[in-house]
Amino acid sequence: MAESEKSWTLGRIAAEVGGELHGPEDQPVSRPVPADSSDPHGISFATSTKFLERAEASAVGSLLVSQDLVPSAKPYVVVEEPRAAFGQLLALWKRPLPLNEGIHPTAVVHPEASIDPSAKVGPYAVVERNAKIGPGCRIYSFSYIGEDCELAKGCVVYPQAVLYQGVRLGERTIVHAGAVLGADGFGFEWDGKRHVKVPQIGLVETGADVEIGANTCIDRATAGTTRLGEGVKLDNLVQIAHNVQVGDHTVIAGLAGVSGSVEIGSRVVMGGAAGIRDHVKVADDVVLGGGAGVAADIEVPGEYWGIPARPMKEAMRASLLVLKLPELMTRIRELEAKVKELEEK
Amino acid sequence: MAESEKSWTLGRIAAEVGGELHGPEDQPVSRPVPADSSDPHGISFATSTKFLERAEASAVGSLLVSQDLVPSAKPYVVVEEPRAAFGQLLALWKRPLPLNEGIHPTAVVHPEASIDPSAKVGPYAVVERNAKIGPGCRIYSFSYIGEDCELAKGCVVYPQAVLYQGVRLGERTIVHAGAVLGADGFGFEWDGKRHVKVPQIGLVETGADVEIGANTCIDRATAGTTRLGEGVKLDNLVQIAHNVQVGDHTVIAGLAGVSGSVEIGSRVVMGGAAGIRDHVKVADDVVLGGGAGVAADIEVPGEYWGIPARPMKEAMRASLLVLKLPELMTRIRELEAKVKELEEK
Amino acid sequence: MAESEKSWTLGRIAAEVGGELHGPEDQPVSRPVPADSSDPHGISFATSTKFLERAEASAVGSLLVSQDLVPSAKPYVVVEEPRAAFGQLLALWKRPLPLNEGIHPTAVVHPEASIDPSAKVGPYAVVERNAKIGPGCRIYSFSYIGEDCELAKGCVVYPQAVLYQGVRLGERTIVHAGAVLGADGFGFEWDGKRHVKVPQIGLVETGADVEIGANTCIDRATAGTTRLGEGVKLDNLVQIAHNVQVGDHTVIAGLAGVSGSVEIGSRVVMGGAAGIRDHVKVADDVVLGGGAGVAADIEVPGEYWGIPARPMKEAMRASLLVLKLPELMTRIRELEAKVKELEEK
Repeated sequence: MAESEKSWTLGRIAAEVGGELHGPEDQPVSRPVPADSSDPHGISFATSTKFLERAEASAVGSLLVSQDLVPSAKPYVVVEEPRAAFGQLLALWKRPLPLNEGIHPTAVVHPEASIDPSAKVGPYAVVERNAKIGPGCRIYSFSYIGEDCELAKGCVVYPQAVLYQGVRLGERTIVHAGAVLGADGFGFEWDGKRHVKVPQIGLVETGADVEIGANTCIDRATAGTTRLGEGVKLDNLVQIAHNVQVGDHTVIAGLAGVSGSVEIGSRVVMGGAAGIRDHVKVADDVVLGGGAGVAADIEVPGEYWGIPARPMKEAMRASLLVLKLPELMTRIRELEAKVKELEEK
Repeated sequence: MAESEKSWTLGRIAAEVGGELHGPEDQPVSRPVPADSSDPHGISFATSTKFLERAEASAVGSLLVSQDLVPSAKPYVVVEEPRAAFGQLLALWKRPLPLNEGIHPTAVVHPEASIDPSAKVGPYAVVERNAKIGPGCRIYSFSYIGEDCELAKGCVVYPQAVLYQGVRLGERTIVHAGAVLGADGFGFEWDGKRHVKVPQIGLVETGADVEIGANTCIDRATAGTTRLGEGVKLDNLVQIAHNVQVGDHTVIAGLAGVSGSVEIGSRVVMGGAAGIRDHVKVADDVVLGGGAGVAADIEVPGEYWGIPARPMKEAMRASLLVLKLPELMTRIRELEAKVKELEEK
Repeated sequence: MAESEKSWTLGRIAAEVGGELHGPEDQPVSRPVPADSSDPHGISFATSTKFLERAEASAVGSLLVSQDLVPSAKPYVVVEEPRAAFGQLLALWKRPLPLNEGIHPTAVVHPEASIDPSAKVGPYAVVERNAKIGPGCRIYSFSYIGEDCELAKGCVVYPQAVLYQGVRLGERTIVHAGAVLGADGFGFEWDGKRHVKVPQIGLVETGADVEIGANTCIDRATAGTTRLGEGVKLDNLVQIAHNVQVGDHTVIAGLAGVSGSVEIGSRVVMGGAAGIRDHVKVADDVVLGGGAGVAADIEVPGEYWGIPARPMKEAMRASLLVLKLPELMTRIRELEAKVKELEEK
């Protein structure tokens, strides 16, 4: 951890990413920064002339570039994949949130919970009866790991996350702060006078390498399981309703909503604030633009947009023509006048 | 609680729901499951041929059906209302989140707070001065019950919920994890240079049998009260702004937003991500489709959709015609050509 | 605090706001209320005939009015700016959430954290290594103030807020309950098989007098800083993605979403549920209507609306014409019939 606070040198950076140094070996490097940073000891990267120009114009100290993009004035390191090399630096500077070894004395752990000795449980975490916390898990402050939850090895649960009951996290699943997994699905029956609650007894389950954003909600199934496949990534403030099934490696951006019993395929991308109506199925490899509203099954891979969502090209054309409606209106009026004239001839 | 972990038999299920058993009395039943479950000891239900077919094709062990829907191969129980009978089973299997009797020693309760002896307060809950917790209430870990809050009997506050100050919950109100009640309304006055905060001193109040979803926010009124009527149900991630009034038995789906001083009638249904502009009134028995944006008062009951929201039929027709705009464009071009030809004759 | 529970008199109110009393000096005043309140000891205000009528029709006890708006029956106080005077009363009645002096014994404070002696830290707050809490700050229960966070003087962090790491709050910044600052940005690289996490090492920084709503999320930058300018106000459930820059005095309403690397100018107003696509720039003094979706840079100040967002006037006209599409369709059909007739002549 001290490492991350020390300054590196450009020479050491070049060695680390396996690149070719052009500049002073002892140029100090404080940290990876964006291309427009004002940090004279920051290092950034460029993958295009545009980015390179932005970096040249800024005070940023040094750059990772590819063979064909050579900075005029700043020290640089030539690598094959500047973006990937920058990612390597990010990983070097990344520090996990601090956490005590073992179980913090203020954590309330049920005697029938099972916590692997290599797991860490922070101050004021609560772990309920029969919960199982796997090897290497990190459970931060104020997390609530409910009854019968099972966390496979290497999971991270950030502060304030809540796992109600029977939530199963696949290996290396990350749950960000304030996320709520396993709250009751939104199920009621109208009896003519009032909405009667349908008891929700199902589970929530994630595959390996899932990441769940801050304050995102995943409801338990009514019966059965709400399921996120392997490698699924959810942004912040996403709503996943009861009994939803999300395929492997699907990515859902912030403020998107998935209604009850929806089935989403694999490698789907849902843009920000997109929504899917209940019981709808979305095929593999579908891309939903931001704000798209899916009202019916989508069976063909490809890009979709609009409310209701339709193929991107069609949606874009319609959207452009809506802007031309005033002109269309004028042209219709002109036609009407001309036709009237012709009729009166 | 042990009960819920035991296996039942189909005979016992039939007796429980008052149905007619067709199949072995000792058929084991593990739990209620969805119709497409692979659990050979799961029990599901069918209310339509489509659902029955799905169940027949699955490994599900047994079914609740109506007289006219008879499974070909699986053991089944005939009942009048299969969905309702299934709901009965869900209720049998439902287990509340575990909670200690009385007040957990780690809870921080102000000496001037009043907690009914039959209420339960979990680890690391905070109950502030002059708060009143009624009989049978269950307050889970990390909940913050602020000064002057009043919870009528039978309320449930799940982990991490926050009630700022002066929040009053009607009987049996359920507040899910991470919900925030009573935060400041979003009120500022622009003084020509900066937004000056308008102090927010009002309250939040719910009727009986209200349910508030995970991470949902209900702001306190500027002055007066933000109020949810009896039987109101809010899904997750809903935003209710200051001074909003919501009528009895209204239901609001996930990611919907209600702006300041809106008045919503009774038995209104707001679809997911629908929104209402500030100071607008929505009549009783209005249904707003998902993503609808209400910009002006709605005085007539019925279905509405679109941005801005208009009667469903009109909105659907306009939405379909937007898709026909390319065709319309072509027809106008053809008309123009023909008219030109006629004029030149 | 006791003050706020006592009754005032109308005479004292008049003196307090520097107004002219019309009515009994000893008329009791319980609290500021909305114009339609049923509280006979409540005081409200009127700035228009419409508001005055509403107040006259209600049971509200007394009113703040301007010279030209004189109530017929109720006691009143004439002031120059009734709304501002009402704001003064709100401030008089406003009570902060209670908080102990100093550091609550249950707070877990790292020995290397630095907390000003005039700051207050509530029960079950966690303050990590090297965090700095400035003079007069109030940190409520269950807040997590992560490593290297810096809070300038007078900040308020309500219960359950989470500041991951390296979050810097300007003076008097208010963070409402459940807000999450500094969670990882949503950055992944698709390697052909899976989304590989891009480590997120950047910071979050706010200017002075910023307010952040309940359950709102502000992600840390990938590298560099996600920054909110001075006087920025965010409502509840807002999503601010990594590397976003928000200019001074900009206001963002509930459920709005700002994608990665967006640059928003100063004094911008974003309506509820509005959204901005990643890397887009929005100029100073832009107003985005509720639900607007910004897909491209906006360079000219003014009002914008629609998906994609366009100048308000244009968007409104197009939106109205969409509703006229059925009529347009009929007119085109009629034209076609007439032209056919003309051609056959």
